[in-house]
Amino acid sequence: MSLHDEVELLRTIPLFANIEPSKLKLLAFTSERLTFRQGQDLCRQGDMGDAAFIIIDGEADVLVENGGKLTSVAKAGKHSVVGEIAILCDVPRTATVRALSDVTVLRISKELFFRLVREFPSMGLAIMRELAARLDRTTSQLTRALGRITE
Amino acid sequence: MSLHDEVELLRTIPLFANIEPSKLKLLAFTSERLTFRQGQDLCRQGDMGDAAFIIIDGEADVLVENGGKLTSVAKAGKHSVVGEIAILCDVPRTATVRALSDVTVLRISKELFFRLVREFPSMGLAIMRELAARLDRTTSQLTRALGRITE
Repeated sequence: MSLHDEVELLRTIPLFANIEPSKLKLLAFTSERLTFRQGQDLCRQGDMGDAAFIIIDGEADVLVENGGKLTSVAKAGKHSVVGEIAILCDVPRTATVRALSDVTVLRISKELFFRLVREFPSMGLAIMRELAARLDRTTSQLTRALGRITE
Repeated sequence: MSLHDEVELLRTIPLFANIEPSKLKLLAFTSERLTFRQGQDLCRQGDMGDAAFIIIDGEADVLVENGGKLTSVAKAGKHSVVGEIAILCDVPRTATVRALSDVTVLRISKELFFRLVREFPSMGLAIMRELAARLDRTTSQLTRALGRITE
Protein backbone atom coordinates (compact mmCIF):
# COMPACT_ATOMS: atom_id res chain seq x y z
CA MET A 1 0.00 0.00 0.00
CA SER A 2 1.37 3.45 -0.92
CA LEU A 3 2.01 6.04 1.77
CA HIS A 4 -0.80 8.13 0.32
CA ASP A 5 -3.28 5.24 0.57
CA GLU A 6 -2.08 4.50 4.10
CA VAL A 7 -2.70 8.11 5.16
CA GLU A 8 -6.15 8.02 3.53
CA LEU A 9 -6.95 4.87 5.50
CA LEU A 10 -5.79 6.45 8.77
CA ARG A 11 -8.02 9.46 8.07
CA THR A 12 -11.10 7.22 8.13
CA ILE A 13 -10.35 6.26 11.78
CA PRO A 14 -12.36 8.62 14.04
CA LEU A 15 -9.51 8.70 16.60
CA PHE A 16 -7.34 10.49 14.06
CA ALA A 17 -10.09 12.68 12.61
CA ASN A 18 -8.56 15.94 13.86
CA ILE A 19 -4.96 15.18 13.01
CA GLU A 20 -3.47 16.92 9.95
CA PRO A 21 -2.63 14.60 7.03
CA SER A 22 1.06 15.63 7.23
CA LYS A 23 1.21 14.34 10.81
CA LEU A 24 -0.59 11.16 9.82
CA LYS A 25 2.39 10.38 7.60
CA LEU A 26 4.49 10.15 10.75
CA LEU A 27 1.96 7.73 12.19
CA ALA A 28 1.92 5.68 8.98
CA PHE A 29 5.73 5.45 9.17
CA THR A 30 6.06 4.68 12.89
CA SER A 31 3.13 2.34 13.53
CA GLU A 32 3.10 -1.27 12.46
CA ARG A 33 0.30 -3.09 10.68
CA LEU A 34 -0.42 -6.66 11.75
CA THR A 35 -2.98 -9.26 10.76
CA PHE A 36 -4.31 -11.90 13.16
CA ARG A 37 -6.15 -14.96 11.92
CA GLN A 38 -9.50 -15.93 13.43
CA GLY A 39 -8.82 -17.51 16.83
CA GLN A 40 -5.39 -15.90 17.31
CA ASP A 41 -4.76 -13.69 20.35
CA LEU A 42 -3.83 -10.03 19.90
CA CYS A 43 -2.70 -10.10 23.54
CA ARG A 44 -3.03 -12.45 26.52
CA GLN A 45 -4.17 -11.61 30.06
CA GLY A 46 -1.23 -11.53 32.46
CA ASP A 47 1.43 -10.81 29.82
CA MET A 48 3.37 -7.57 29.97
CA GLY A 49 2.15 -5.12 27.34
CA ASP A 50 4.21 -2.60 25.41
CA ALA A 51 1.69 -1.59 22.74
CA ALA A 52 -1.93 -0.70 22.08
CA PHE A 53 -3.88 -1.78 19.00
CA ILE A 54 -6.34 0.06 16.81
CA ILE A 55 -8.59 -2.36 14.96
CA ILE A 56 -8.68 -1.44 11.28
CA ASP A 57 -10.80 -4.37 10.20
CA GLY A 58 -12.52 -7.35 11.81
CA GLU A 59 -13.87 -8.06 15.28
CA ALA A 60 -12.27 -9.36 18.46
CA ASP A 61 -13.53 -10.81 21.72
CA VAL A 62 -12.37 -9.38 25.07
CA LEU A 63 -11.99 -12.33 27.45
CA VAL A 64 -11.23 -12.32 31.16
CA GLU A 65 -10.11 -15.38 33.09
CA ASN A 66 -12.21 -16.42 36.03
CA GLY A 67 -11.56 -19.63 37.91
CA GLY A 68 -9.65 -21.13 34.97
CA LYS A 69 -12.41 -20.24 32.50
CA LEU A 70 -12.41 -17.38 29.97
CA THR A 71 -15.51 -15.15 30.13
CA SER A 72 -16.34 -12.70 27.33
CA VAL A 73 -16.84 -9.22 28.79
CA ALA A 74 -16.94 -7.15 25.59
CA LYS A 75 -16.50 -7.13 21.82
CA ALA A 76 -14.09 -4.82 20.02
CA GLY A 77 -14.94 -3.90 16.45
CA LYS A 78 -13.57 -1.75 13.66
CA HIS A 79 -11.84 1.43 14.91
CA SER A 80 -11.81 0.31 18.56
CA VAL A 81 -8.68 0.79 20.63
CA VAL A 82 -7.61 -2.23 22.69
CA GLY A 83 -4.68 -2.90 24.96
CA GLU A 84 -4.23 0.66 26.16
CA ILE A 85 -4.91 -0.14 29.85
CA ALA A 86 -1.62 -2.04 30.26
CA ILE A 87 0.42 0.80 28.79
CA LEU A 88 -1.48 3.56 30.63
CA CYS A 89 -1.37 1.86 34.03
CA ASP A 90 1.91 -0.10 33.73
CA VAL A 91 0.14 -3.33 34.66
CA PRO A 92 0.08 -6.74 32.94
CA ARG A 93 -2.60 -7.23 30.26
CA THR A 94 -5.98 -7.13 32.00
CA ALA A 95 -7.73 -9.24 29.35
CA THR A 96 -7.11 -11.62 26.48
CA VAL A 97 -8.18 -10.19 23.12
CA ARG A 98 -8.99 -12.94 20.60
CA ALA A 99 -9.76 -12.46 16.91
CA LEU A 100 -13.37 -13.49 16.10
CA SER A 101 -12.64 -13.07 12.39
CA ASP A 102 -9.43 -12.16 10.58
CA VAL A 103 -8.42 -8.92 12.27
CA THR A 104 -6.11 -6.21 10.93
CA VAL A 105 -4.67 -3.81 13.49
CA LEU A 106 -2.36 -0.87 13.74
CA ARG A 107 0.14 -1.62 16.50
CA ILE A 108 1.01 1.57 18.41
CA SER A 109 4.05 1.21 20.68
CA LYS A 110 3.86 2.66 24.19
CA GLU A 111 6.34 5.37 23.24
CA LEU A 112 4.35 6.37 20.12
CA PHE A 113 1.09 6.29 22.07
CA PHE A 114 2.36 8.80 24.64
CA ARG A 115 3.88 10.97 21.93
CA LEU A 116 0.58 11.05 19.98
CA VAL A 117 -1.47 11.92 23.06
CA ARG A 118 0.93 14.72 24.02
CA GLU A 119 1.05 16.15 20.52
CA PHE A 120 -2.63 15.74 19.75
CA PRO A 121 -4.85 16.48 22.75
CA SER A 122 -7.91 15.77 20.58
CA MET A 123 -6.72 12.19 20.27
CA GLY A 124 -6.34 12.06 24.05
CA LEU A 125 -9.91 13.29 24.39
CA ALA A 126 -11.15 10.62 21.97
CA ILE A 127 -9.38 7.93 24.03
CA MET A 128 -10.85 9.35 27.25
CA ARG A 129 -14.31 9.19 25.64
CA GLU A 130 -13.80 5.57 24.65
CA LEU A 131 -12.55 4.61 28.13
CA ALA A 132 -15.45 6.48 29.77
CA ALA A 133 -17.99 4.75 27.50
CA ARG A 134 -16.49 1.32 28.28
CA LEU A 135 -16.48 2.11 32.00
CA ASP A 136 -20.15 3.08 31.71
CA ARG A 137 -21.04 -0.18 29.93
CA THR A 138 -19.00 -2.33 32.33
CA THR A 139 -20.57 -0.63 35.37
CA SER A 140 -24.05 -1.34 33.94
CA GLN A 141 -23.15 -5.01 33.39
CA LEU A 142 -21.76 -5.18 36.95
CA THR A 143 -24.92 -3.67 38.41
CA ARG A 144 -27.09 -6.16 36.54
CA ALA A 145 -24.87 -9.05 37.64
CA LEU A 146 -24.93 -7.93 41.30
CA GLY A 147 -28.72 -7.62 41.03
CA ARG A 148 -28.94 -11.25 39.93
CA ILE A 149 -26.74 -12.38 42.83
CA THR A 150 -28.84 -10.64 45.49
CA GLU A 151 -32.20 -11.58 43.94
CA MET B 1 -8.13 31.54 51.37
CA SER B 2 -5.61 33.67 49.49
CA LEU B 3 -4.91 33.05 45.81
CA HIS B 4 -1.39 31.92 46.77
CA ASP B 5 -2.74 29.35 49.26
CA GLU B 6 -5.29 28.18 46.71
CA VAL B 7 -2.55 27.61 44.12
CA GLU B 8 -0.43 25.76 46.70
CA LEU B 9 -3.40 23.52 47.47
CA LEU B 10 -3.97 22.80 43.75
CA ARG B 11 -0.29 21.86 43.41
CA THR B 12 -0.76 19.03 45.90
CA ILE B 13 -3.34 17.38 43.57
CA PRO B 14 -1.48 14.80 41.41
CA LEU B 15 -3.69 15.62 38.41
CA PHE B 16 -2.18 19.12 38.30
CA ALA B 17 1.38 18.06 39.16
CA ASN B 18 2.83 19.04 35.79
CA ILE B 19 0.96 22.31 35.36
CA GLU B 20 2.93 25.53 35.93
CA PRO B 21 1.88 27.55 39.00
CA SER B 22 1.02 30.54 36.79
CA LYS B 23 -1.53 28.39 34.93
CA LEU B 24 -2.91 27.05 38.20
CA LYS B 25 -3.95 30.61 39.04
CA LEU B 26 -6.32 30.45 36.08
CA LEU B 27 -7.73 27.22 37.45
CA ALA B 28 -8.07 28.73 40.93
CA PHE B 29 -10.01 31.65 39.40
CA THR B 30 -12.25 29.66 37.09
CA SER B 31 -13.12 26.59 39.14
CA GLU B 32 -15.58 26.65 42.00
CA ARG B 33 -15.06 25.16 45.44
CA LEU B 34 -18.05 23.44 47.02
CA THR B 35 -18.62 21.55 50.26
CA PHE B 36 -21.12 18.73 50.61
CA ARG B 37 -22.27 17.50 54.01
CA GLN B 38 -22.20 13.79 54.84
CA GLY B 39 -25.16 12.14 53.09
CA GLN B 40 -25.54 14.86 50.45
CA ASP B 41 -25.27 13.95 46.75
CA LEU B 42 -22.57 15.49 44.57
CA CYS B 43 -24.59 14.30 41.58
CA ARG B 44 -27.52 11.96 40.92
CA GLN B 45 -27.78 9.12 38.40
CA GLY B 46 -29.98 10.12 35.46
CA ASP B 47 -29.49 13.88 35.86
CA MET B 48 -27.80 15.83 33.09
CA GLY B 49 -24.23 16.73 34.03
CA ASP B 50 -22.36 19.89 33.11
CA ALA B 51 -19.36 19.54 35.44
CA ALA B 52 -16.79 17.12 36.87
CA PHE B 53 -15.56 17.20 40.47
CA ILE B 54 -12.12 16.75 41.95
CA ILE B 55 -12.32 15.65 45.57
CA ILE B 56 -10.04 17.85 47.69
CA ASP B 57 -11.03 16.34 50.99
CA GLY B 58 -13.32 13.58 52.29
CA GLU B 59 -14.72 10.39 50.76
CA ALA B 60 -17.75 9.64 48.60
CA ASP B 61 -19.67 6.53 47.63
CA VAL B 62 -20.39 5.75 43.97
CA LEU B 63 -23.88 4.24 43.80
CA VAL B 64 -25.71 2.72 40.87
CA GLU B 65 -29.45 2.05 40.79
CA ASN B 66 -30.56 -1.48 40.19
CA GLY B 67 -34.21 -2.50 40.43
CA GLY B 68 -35.02 0.52 42.61
CA LYS B 69 -32.11 -0.15 44.98
CA LEU B 70 -28.78 1.71 45.12
CA THR B 71 -25.69 -0.53 44.97
CA SER B 72 -22.24 0.76 45.88
CA VAL B 73 -19.82 0.05 43.02
CA ALA B 74 -16.80 2.12 44.15
CA LYS B 75 -15.47 4.64 46.64
CA ALA B 76 -13.94 7.96 45.60
CA GLY B 77 -11.36 9.45 47.96
CA LYS B 78 -9.12 12.50 48.15
CA HIS B 79 -7.85 13.65 44.72
CA SER B 80 -10.21 11.38 42.77
CA VAL B 81 -12.04 12.76 39.77
CA VAL B 82 -15.76 11.99 39.61
CA GLY B 83 -18.52 12.95 37.21
CA GLU B 84 -16.34 13.12 34.12
CA ILE B 85 -18.17 10.35 32.24
CA ALA B 86 -21.31 12.47 31.72
CA ILE B 87 -19.32 15.38 30.28
CA LEU B 88 -17.02 13.19 28.16
CA CYS B 89 -19.80 11.07 26.68
CA ASP B 90 -22.69 13.58 26.69
CA VAL B 91 -24.87 11.15 28.59
CA PRO B 92 -26.89 11.58 31.82
CA ARG B 93 -25.03 10.91 35.09
CA THR B 94 -24.18 7.21 35.16
CA ALA B 95 -24.04 7.03 38.97
CA THR B 96 -25.07 8.83 42.13
CA VAL B 97 -22.08 10.12 44.11
CA ARG B 98 -22.92 10.52 47.81
CA ALA B 99 -20.70 12.10 50.48
CA LEU B 100 -19.63 9.51 53.11
CA SER B 101 -18.10 12.30 55.20
CA ASP B 102 -18.06 16.05 54.69
CA VAL B 103 -16.59 16.37 51.20
CA THR B 104 -14.87 19.40 49.65
CA VAL B 105 -14.62 19.45 45.87
CA LEU B 106 -13.36 21.58 43.06
CA ARG B 107 -16.17 21.86 40.52
CA ILE B 108 -14.77 21.95 36.97
CA SER B 109 -17.30 23.02 34.34
CA LYS B 110 -17.47 21.06 31.10
CA GLU B 111 -15.99 24.02 29.22
CA LEU B 112 -13.06 24.36 31.64
CA PHE B 113 -12.49 20.59 31.62
CA PHE B 114 -12.08 20.50 27.83
CA ARG B 115 -9.89 23.61 27.90
CA LEU B 116 -7.59 22.09 30.56
CA VAL B 117 -7.25 18.81 28.71
CA ARG B 118 -6.43 20.59 25.44
CA GLU B 119 -3.91 22.92 27.06
CA PHE B 120 -2.31 20.35 29.35
CA PRO B 121 -1.97 16.94 27.67
CA SER B 122 -0.32 15.63 30.86
CA MET B 123 -3.61 16.23 32.66
CA GLY B 124 -5.40 14.35 29.89
CA LEU B 125 -3.00 11.45 30.38
CA ALA B 126 -3.61 11.46 34.14
CA ILE B 127 -7.37 11.30 33.52
CA MET B 128 -6.89 8.48 31.01
CA ARG B 129 -4.86 6.58 33.62
CA GLU B 130 -7.59 7.04 36.22
CA LEU B 131 -10.32 5.90 33.79
CA ALA B 132 -8.20 2.90 32.74
CA ALA B 133 -7.57 1.90 36.37
CA ARG B 134 -11.29 2.17 37.18
CA LEU B 135 -12.17 0.13 34.10
CA ASP B 136 -9.67 -2.51 35.22
CA ARG B 137 -11.19 -2.69 38.73
CA THR B 138 -14.77 -2.74 37.42
CA THR B 139 -13.95 -5.49 34.92
CA SER B 140 -12.42 -7.58 37.75
CA GLN B 141 -15.55 -7.07 39.88
CA LEU B 142 -17.73 -8.03 36.90
CA THR B 143 -15.72 -11.19 36.25
CA ARG B 144 -16.03 -12.25 39.90
CA ALA B 145 -19.77 -11.50 39.89
CA LEU B 146 -20.32 -13.48 36.66
CA GLY B 147 -18.33 -16.33 38.21
CA ARG B 148 -20.72 -16.43 41.15
CA ILE B 149 -23.75 -16.48 38.85
CA THR B 150 -22.52 -19.43 36.81
CA GLU B 151 -21.20 -21.41 39.80
